[in-house]
Amino acid sequence: MGFFESLKDNCADEWRAYTRHEFVLQLGAATLPKPAFQTYLVQDYLFLIQFARAHALAVYKSTNLQDMRDAAAGVSAILDVEMDLHVRLCADWGLSAADLEHSVEAPQTIAYTRFVLEAGHAGDILDLMVALAPCMLGYAEIGRWLVAEHGKPEANHPYQTWINEYAGQAYQDVAQATLLTLEKHASELLTQGRQNRLFHLFSQATRLEAEFWQMGLTSV
Amino acid sequence: MGFFESLKDNCADEWRAYTRHEFVLQLGAATLPKPAFQTYLVQDYLFLIQFARAHALAVYKSTNLQDMRDAAAGVSAILDVEMDLHVRLCADWGLSAADLEHSVEAPQTIAYTRFVLEAGHAGDILDLMVALAPCMLGYAEIGRWLVAEHGKPEANHPYQTWINEYAGQAYQDVAQATLLTLEKHASELLTQGRQNRLFHLFSQATRLEAEFWQMGLTSV
Amino acid sequence: MGFFESLKDNCADEWRAYTRHEFVLQLGAATLPKPAFQTYLVQDYLFLIQFARAHALAVYKSTNLQDMRDAAAGVSAILDVEMDLHVRLCADWGLSAADLEHSVEAPQTIAYTRFVLEAGHAGDILDLMVALAPCMLGYAEIGRWLVAEHGKPEANHPYQTWINEYAGQAYQDVAQATLLTLEKHASELLTQGRQNRLFHLFSQATRLEAEFWQMGLTSV
Amino acid sequence: MGFFESLKDNCADEWRAYTRHEFVLQLGAATLPKPAFQTYLVQDYLFLIQFARAHALAVYKSTNLQDMRDAAAGVSAILDVEMDLHVRLCADWGLSAADLEHSVEAPQTIAYTRFVLEAGHAGDILDLMVALAPCMLGYAEIGRWLVAEHGKPEANHPYQTWINEYAGQAYQDVAQATLLTLEKHASELLTQGRQNRLFHLFSQATRLEAEFWQMGLTSV
Repeated sequence: MGFFESLKDNCADEWRAYTRHEFVLQLGAATLPKPAFQTYLVQDYLFLIQFARAHALAVYKSTNLQDMRDAAAGVSAILDVEMDLHVRLCADWGLSAADLEHSVEAPQTIAYTRFVLEAGHAGDILDLMVALAPCMLGYAEIGRWLVAEHGKPEANHPYQTWINEYAGQAYQDVAQATLLTLEKHASELLTQGRQNRLFHLFSQATRLEAEFWQMGLTSV
Repeated sequence: MGFFESLKDNCADEWRAYTRHEFVLQLGAATLPKPAFQTYLVQDYLFLIQFARAHALAVYKSTNLQDMRDAAAGVSAILDVEMDLHVRLCADWGLSAADLEHSVEAPQTIAYTRFVLEAGHAGDILDLMVALAPCMLGYAEIGRWLVAEHGKPEANHPYQTWINEYAGQAYQDVAQATLLTLEKHASELLTQGRQNRLFHLFSQATRLEAEFWQMGLTSV
Repeated sequence: MGFFESLKDNCADEWRAYTRHEFVLQLGAATLPKPAFQTYLVQDYLFLIQFARAHALAVYKSTNLQDMRDAAAGVSAILDVEMDLHVRLCADWGLSAADLEHSVEAPQTIAYTRFVLEAGHAGDILDLMVALAPCMLGYAEIGRWLVAEHGKPEANHPYQTWINEYAGQAYQDVAQATLLTLEKHASELLTQGRQNRLFHLFSQATRLEAEFWQMGLTSV
Repeated sequence: MGFFESLKDNCADEWRAYTRHEFVLQLGAATLPKPAFQTYLVQDYLFLIQFARAHALAVYKSTNLQDMRDAAAGVSAILDVEMDLHVRLCADWGLSAADLEHSVEAPQTIAYTRFVLEAGHAGDILDLMVALAPCMLGYAEIGRWLVAEHGKPEANHPYQTWINEYAGQAYQDVAQATLLTLEKHASELLTQGRQNRLFHLFSQATRLEAEFWQMGLTSV
């Protein structure tokens, strides 16, 4: 079994609670209230900023040039591409750039992002990658699952842009590359002695991701 | 007005919501359900571990020997004295050392502690101190207020140990020293240009402290 | 006077010892022994790796999106452009990629790069930028001075590629942008109380840059 | 073979060049010029400050309470005991506290200390401990060797205080505890995949320690 599989296996309930969260189910079924999605979108924008910082930390923590370049490509992709996409997606939902800039991070946004960043500071590149994995790899899994469950979203599906983004080949390719990097770091750095801590790190990060969905639902 | 006063003034509502939180009111009135306090105690134990790490970061971030020594005294006080006191307090409430060690950090515990630590990494010693201030100085204020409001707790008050600890002279002295250190750092490092970010940092930290109380209440 | 000017003024002797170092004079006069330049080139390659890490740290330490994007562009420029240029320049001097990869950091390389990175961790973005300034802005000054002194290098000047790179408009533009960023950070974060520490930081970094030139000379 | 033995074995020449450095030989033979020792003493005082910061980083990077307490005891020992001893030793050599405070870090002091601190930030607690090991464990070995070679120093030996400190049981006990901690971290975190990087880290740190001795000699 790959390392990522073992991380998920170790917290199968938390992983299911995150990837099959009520927010995800309603989003797939097109029944998610729009304000819930809007709340999520705004917080996800703020999340992206911290996510870019986490990738910058990964550049710093990398131990060879290729890994540095890969992580730096991730920083640029977030800051130069994803955030613009996000601003446009928000605009489609009636949220202006000013709305985004004046919004305040929810506790759930703070909890996950600072948990990841701090895990990165405290440990090495493997700790950082494990804390990031639920987000990067979980979204890919959610995207695939939504399409498997509901088929490719119809043109009138309110959340088709979001689904198409994460189920789309471009994101799936990024996720696959991230998975390979994670497995490579694990093959180089994993020991029996740190396995439980990494399991715990992943499990906590997964719970914090579920809380992030819940924040969207609860806001309605 | 001192810097700490200006920090509180800038988020007067959040500060009040934290220092006069329902958890605090019920604790003072001796009406707080015991399970709420127990939940809080366990999480506060886990909080202390991160708090010690934050003080270690303050040693590292200090720019002169005296500040390093003060912060190091804080690390030792937490690891060698406060944590033992906490274990004893927990034992009085039926919580064993094993209970504490096997407990899992709540999202609210993660949110505040990692927010503080990450703010410390990202910025300088002033950022770190501002993020820590709601905890260190807020508890002193809460302790004083509870005694002002209810008088010194009677021997049969269920939360007398807790109140006496934070209202007591030893803790008040530590808080006063912390206040002076914060003001010194501000006098050395504060600029108009970073004031708003520090206000925001303090306000966010204060909100996360209120969430920490709420966690205790909600757990019941 | 701008902040950068005040930094240089404060350590005018050290600044001159660095920017008019014997290594620079000989390089301009085309009398620098080739082995000295080769030693420098190899160490400068290793330097660039740490320099990319320092820019990644600047992304992380930035307090707004624009600064993050600027620093991220710096990371990409180093990893994707400058390092390739450097490999080609080294190849022209008979140094293969394998030579570079198997080379070992000299103490002088370690001293300056780790000093910069550690100053960045310990402080905020201004500390990091001040520690980086002697390199980024010093090289621009050296490039300009060499051309002012000797004219644009002839085609048979052994070090013309190096001189043209740092005297060239592209590098001068990057340096100018860096200067503006430094001045902006200073206008936002500088206080009387931290001025001496920043002066000292800059002065130390400048001395370590001079040692880096000296390493090239001494190696012959 | 223990991990520390394998670290030394891997760079046997560098280790010998450090632990049997001309500075050490002359110190043991009582032929070391006093100005060389004075230069060393002043720089070692500045070194200790950074060393305390490195131990604070170790508190932060520790993954359990016992390791945090051990590292915190190290911070206190340096700040509250060793530095005072050092000030007294300096006073015996005609160096006042003001001399120490106004001294400037030599490049060699910067190189080793920042190398250690940065290695700690970039990696995990094992990276930090490996980078610290040449200092903590090397001095213990040097102390033992000097006494084995020359016998316990006579009362008129100019460097008897220094030798007795590092050959003495108190320091040897601290070093032994440090060794056990290093071996424990290695047994928990060492993999084949990171061994070469740790060997390199140790080898570089050892070379930087030798440069530190050399600085004393060269100053004369």
